[in-house]
Amino acid sequence: MSAERSPRGRGRPRGGDPALTRQTIIDVARAQFAERGFRGASVRSIAGAAGVDPSLINHHFGDKANLLVATMALPFNPLEKIAGVLDGPLDGLGNRLVRTFCESWDPHRDVFTAAVRSTFDGSLENAPLLNFAQSVVTERFTARLEGPDGQLRASLIASQLTGLALMRYVARIEPLASTCIDDVVAAYAPALQANITPEISGR
Amino acid sequence: MSAERSPRGRGRPRGGDPALTRQTIIDVARAQFAERGFRGASVRSIAGAAGVDPSLINHHFGDKANLLVATMALPFNPLEKIAGVLDGPLDGLGNRLVRTFCESWDPHRDVFTAAVRSTFDGSLENAPLLNFAQSVVTERFTARLEGPDGQLRASLIASQLTGLALMRYVARIEPLASTCIDDVVAAYAPALQANITPEISGR
Repeated sequence: MSAERSPRGRGRPRGGDPALTRQTIIDVARAQFAERGFRGASVRSIAGAAGVDPSLINHHFGDKANLLVATMALPFNPLEKIAGVLDGPLDGLGNRLVRTFCESWDPHRDVFTAAVRSTFDGSLENAPLLNFAQSVVTERFTARLEGPDGQLRASLIASQLTGLALMRYVARIEPLASTCIDDVVAAYAPALQANITPEISGR
Repeated sequence: MSAERSPRGRGRPRGGDPALTRQTIIDVARAQFAERGFRGASVRSIAGAAGVDPSLINHHFGDKANLLVATMALPFNPLEKIAGVLDGPLDGLGNRLVRTFCESWDPHRDVFTAAVRSTFDGSLENAPLLNFAQSVVTERFTARLEGPDGQLRASLIASQLTGLALMRYVARIEPLASTCIDDVVAAYAPALQANITPEISGR
């Protein structure tokens, strides 16, 4: 299976080309995530199919979420962006979130559009973008939010960002598509904040 | 062109089968909306290509927005739903909007999913769903909202509803996909309301 596997099939590769190993892991992971979903594909099962030791996956990618990101071939690491946004007070998180989201994706509208199209044009189940929205974005926000219904509110935040990106980048509905980031942040942040701190936002 | 056109090509049909005339108008309108967009296709141009008098379009459909809705073959008339939601105080509009949206679409998830897929799988320009979001939903909300940035806020409301439907119906992200309508309304209405009455929502 693996490009790095020993020709005699004696298990995981030793001393192979690290770049090749990395790519093999990515290819196997992409297939397993698509087949079993993010939760169903384990580091162990991916390592097994790639013919590498699980520790090599941690070495190359850190964790399974970063491995998922690597399979998506994005122009930036959304996990770092999310961590940067969440690493601060809940008050103002809506503002930081909209700004970071737009600043990250505005220069890469076409990448987002392509990802959305490949997600929604065929079998939805376990599409990379949905694996990411469901298992990474929603879970990290759930862990950070306080108060009741954190999981539901987190999935609504994911909905809001998806809707924003769909209208701004894919459908390009005006005036949203061509409004500058500052104005989008000013207009939309309170709506995000309503799901982040509902008790403060006068719910 | 028209199924009702006189065999001798002498212009608009007289005394033909009304159901056939109606269907001919719908077919011509669908093609013109797809080709020229909602704004680019006029009642006059559609009537001309269908070989009928423009007054017949008003007779059958009322106006161009209802004609667009007719081309989409939806299980209900979204224009009536929107009118019902907008016909009331701005305070509480977020609540009425989320509730009406979910009550209308929850029984027809598959119709929405099919519409989204046919919208995003090919050429986006002038897709019926986008014509409707851009030229009907956004414009009617813009006309109803008060205060600055009404058009931008209206397009953000359209984004929020699109994101909600995408995650609840198409991607079926949990827990949003299976949360009951009452709880979705309670959780999401304040976020919509933040775009409807930003000054009250503590923006």
